[in-house]
Formats: sequence, structure tokens, C-alpha cells
Amino acid sequence: MTAPLPLYLDCDTGIDDTVALAYLLRSPAAELVGIGTVSGNTDAAQAARNTLDLLALAGSPHIPVAVGAHDHLTHPYGGGAPHVHGDNGIGGVILPGSSASPDTRDAADLLLDLSHTHAGSLHILTIGPVTNIAIALQRDPTLPSRISGVTAMGGAALVPGNSTPAAEANIFNDPAAADALARADWDVTFVPLDVTMNHILTDDDRELLLSSADPFARAVGEILDHYLDFYVPQFGERLSPLHDPLAAMAALGAPGIGRSLRVPVVIDTTDGPSRGSTVVDMRGQRLGPRDHEGVRTRVLFEGADTLTEHLVSTILGASTTP
Amino acid sequence: MTAPLPLYLDCDTGIDDTVALAYLLRSPAAELVGIGTVSGNTDAAQAARNTLDLLALAGSPHIPVAVGAHDHLTHPYGGGAPHVHGDNGIGGVILPGSSASPDTRDAADLLLDLSHTHAGSLHILTIGPVTNIAIALQRDPTLPSRISGVTAMGGAALVPGNSTPAAEANIFNDPAAADALARADWDVTFVPLDVTMNHILTDDDRELLLSSADPFARAVGEILDHYLDFYVPQFGERLSPLHDPLAAMAALGAPGIGRSLRVPVVIDTTDGPSRGSTVVDMRGQRLGPRDHEGVRTRVLFEGADTLTEHLVSTILGASTTP
Repeated sequence: MTAPLPLYLDCDTGIDDTVALAYLLRSPAAELVGIGTVSGNTDAAQAARNTLDLLALAGSPHIPVAVGAHDHLTHPYGGGAPHVHGDNGIGGVILPGSSASPDTRDAADLLLDLSHTHAGSLHILTIGPVTNIAIALQRDPTLPSRISGVTAMGGAALVPGNSTPAAEANIFNDPAAADALARADWDVTFVPLDVTMNHILTDDDRELLLSSADPFARAVGEILDHYLDFYVPQFGERLSPLHDPLAAMAALGAPGIGRSLRVPVVIDTTDGPSRGSTVVDMRGQRLGPRDHEGVRTRVLFEGADTLTEHLVSTILGASTTP
Repeated sequence: MTAPLPLYLDCDTGIDDTVALAYLLRSPAAELVGIGTVSGNTDAAQAARNTLDLLALAGSPHIPVAVGAHDHLTHPYGGGAPHVHGDNGIGGVILPGSSASPDTRDAADLLLDLSHTHAGSLHILTIGPVTNIAIALQRDPTLPSRISGVTAMGGAALVPGNSTPAAEANIFNDPAAADALARADWDVTFVPLDVTMNHILTDDDRELLLSSADPFARAVGEILDHYLDFYVPQFGERLSPLHDPLAAMAALGAPGIGRSLRVPVVIDTTDGPSRGSTVVDMRGQRLGPRDHEGVRTRVLFEGADTLTEHLVSTILGASTTP
């Protein structure tokens, strides 16, 4: 068995962030060594509060949680998405309060410190706007030399955006930061709406969580309730696309994650109608997948239908696969 | 039988322009009342020369051909696409020279005059950059009140561009003009790469044209030779996507043309990586096609496989359908 991957998680917890966090905590393939929060689904401070409470419930109160950027690189926080994630970011569910406090460092400094502690092996998984990562890159441009890879939930290549017709929410919320992430000297895999919208969690999956003996798994099920309602107008039934969990599974190379395509990704940082879009060069792919040599951005387009089952069973502690 | 549709054609002839022109000349559903040329595949003057020669060969030397804009609204003509369309725009084929001269008006003035002659019924079909249409709108903002509709080959909604990762050539060649076209007070149907790349003409179809008794149809077949070579790297065989012919068939409502979706289309006129892209709001279509009430832009996404046969048979004069 290979050693678990040391992971820094950057998140805006958030309902699907909660599911991703639960997966990472329960997967033997991950060693979550630190978490930074950022404003996105909710504000950075609330996201940290939610994360600390979830960690306590999961029995992992020792993982440091650092509050990160409240505002984005070029504009202030816009107020989040309470219609999607509830007023408190976790669907209005009140968790038992953790007695733990956030780390005294901010998220960018926590990431930089961890990059030294786990130099060469630390993987960055971002499932919110990537403001903290951009700030860390500004503070220490040598960061990429100590990072084994980056996985980012974000973008839309050949499908519609969700924040705007062209842009997905995480990238749209801080295009300048995403631009810095995409240009940095490391391998970045984007997990865009192209793949996340095709992997769903249903009420049946939620029932499995709710019937668990583990109060943490039950809490994840409760938190999902609000999210499943939000998607009814789009899908015609209660379900949840697995945005952040897909990125978590991609970071760990979960069974069923497809091959990522190595293609140029440019972030639109203009103030035009495509602001925040991920411009992926998908020309010349008609005869089959074609990697661009020398390009360090990858995009995940495919995953097996079994990923949802892997996700839920891992959260339930019933998984036998990494 | 309904009266033929009076058409103003704006083109940059061009190999696929040639096929579209041949279709329009032979279709009983169209009355081609004037043609303007613009720089795109080749320059506006060469496009007019090609068009006049084709009209003479087709026995329609009476249709006025006006030279239009050499340069685009915000930038000069970039030199065309000789690697796609040959040095003279029609695959290097030397046609018998027409004795006719271009109209003394420029393309925008020809369009404006025709809009009065055929007030209320004139349809505009553009298969190149839409510079001339934008100039006509500048000269006379009342133009839309006399136009029955506009069909424009251009754009890419959920597929890669061809000029850039995000932008299709006709729109990319003059985004400011396309923006004016999309915002004007008329019904515009875009025929984007989403549909044109799925409709092809093969060497077998070309053979049908080459074996015709009609020297015009044979010339169209000869001109296609160069174009079929260009697409080999993309498709793995000699064939031609039917960009401009699809727009011509859409304008005439040919049998097999699908329903166009009424959705917002915004043209990216920034200098960013999405310059020239057509930002189509395709959100909320997961449960089936959804028209946006009150929106005057439409996008064609679907057509029957029989469209190629309809196209070729119409050019050959063998069609019994409009």
C-alpha cells in the first residue's frame, strides 16, 4: 500500500465541500495536513467555523484550520450563495460546536509552512475560489517547487457556466487568482462542470448516510438536504452534482477517475462577457484525445458511474478500495 | 408554392461560400437580389471577382455584386486564409472571366437600397465577417425595420472555435461588427460551428458535381478539391464541413433544418482570450430545449443528415423540394 497523499485543502465550506471533506477524512489514500478557508459559498470565517465543527464531529479536531481571504484579489466578497448552501453555508444545519479555534496563521501562511514540512510531496486541493493560493504565490514564488501537484474544482470547458453563461462560480469569484494558479510552474488539474455535472448523489445515497451509526456521516446527510432541493429546477428531481467531491476523488486518483487531458487553459480576467471563463484549447480533438506536450494544465472530462458509490461507501467507512 | 425569399447575400467567396452561392442560385426558394463582399477568406475585391465569375458561369450575370469593406471596424484585414481557401479564395481554380464589373455602390449602400426595394421582405444572409452589415446599420439605423430576418454563419456555442480556442473565424474577424449585428432590432439566427461541423460533404458528393453536364456545378466540384485536403488532419479523411451552405439552407428553411433555439447571444469584443467568441446562454437546458421569451437572437444546433443530399441535389438541379 502506498503512503497516503499529504493534502492541503482550500475550501469555502459549503455543502459539497462538506461531502468532499468527509471523503478526504475517511479515505485511507489521503492525509489531510491542513485546511484553509476562503470566501465563496459562505465567508471565510463562517467556512472555518463549519470546518472546525465538522472536524470535531469526525474525530479529527487536530487538523489545523486557518481562516483565509475574506475578499478576493480584485474585488470584495459578494455575499456567497445562501440560496444554494443555506445561510450558514451548511444548509442551515446546526452542528455541535467545536471548542477548537482557527489556526493563528492565515491560510496562505499555513499553506507555505506545510509546503516546507511536506516539501516535494504536498498536494494542493482547492474547491473554492483560489484567492489563498494566489496570495501564497505572491508571498513566496518558490512555493511550486515544493508542491507535488494541484487539483482545482473549477471551470467549464465545453458546457455552460453556472455563475454566468460562460463562467463557473469558483473561477468567476476570483479570475485573477485563478490566472495566477494556472500560470504557476506546477501541474494543475482542473475538474470542471463538464465532468462534475455528470456525477450525482441522490436521495437514496443520502438515506444511506442518514442511516449510518456514525454521527458525522449522519450530519453530512442532513446537510445535503438543502442542496438537493436547489437542483430540482435544473434536473427535475432532488439530487446533487458532485462538484467538490469529484475534485477530491481526482486528487486521490480514486478508482473510476478518467485520464485528464493535458491542454492549454487560459483564464479570462477581462471585464467582458466571458470574465472568469476557462478558455480550454479543445481544437483538434475530433480524432480522439490529444495531449499538448509541455503544457502543465490538465482538464478532467471523464469519470466512471461508480464514483458516487465509491464516495458514499468511503464516507461510510465501508470502502475496501483507496 | 410560396414566393421565393428575396435575399441579400454578404460573403467573402471563399470555397464554402461558392457552395452556398451555388445552392442559392439553384434553389427555387431563393431570389438572390444582391450580393456584397467583404474581406475574410480572401479580400473583398477578390471575393467580388470570384463571385462575378461564378455568377457568369451560372448564367446569372444580372445579379449586382458590390465590393464591401476591405478592412474591419477596429482593425485592418489580416490577409485571409490562403491555406484553407487557396491563393485566390477559390482553391486556385481559374474560372472563365466574367465581363461584368462590380456595382458602383459599396456593399452597405447596395444593402440599404435593396432594403427599400424589398422593404419588409428582404432577408440578410451573411457568410463572412459582418462588417458591411455594421456599416449599413451605422449609415441608416432604420435598416432593421425593413428586414424580415438575418441569418449569419458564425460563432461557436458549446464547441471549440476555429480561429482561436474560443472564437469562430467570421466573428473573430470583426467582433465589433458582430456585436452591432447581435444588438440590432431584428431577428438574427446564428449558424455556429456546433452544427456546421456535423454536416459534411465528401469526395463522393464532389464526384457527383464533377460529373454534371452543368459547367457551373463542375466548377464548384473543382473548387472544392483544395478545401477537402485542408480538413484531412482534423477529420482523418478528405471532406468538407458545410459552414456556409448550412447557413444558406437555414435561411431558406430547407427540409431537415432543425428548430433554432431562442437564446441570448453576446459577442465578446474584449482584447482577452475570449475575443470574438459568441457567449450563448445555454444554462437551464438540461431538461430539454428552452426558449428565452423576448430574446431576438437564435442559434441553430441541429439539422438532419439529409441536408448534404438536399444541398448537392439542389446544386445539380435535381431537387424536387424547395
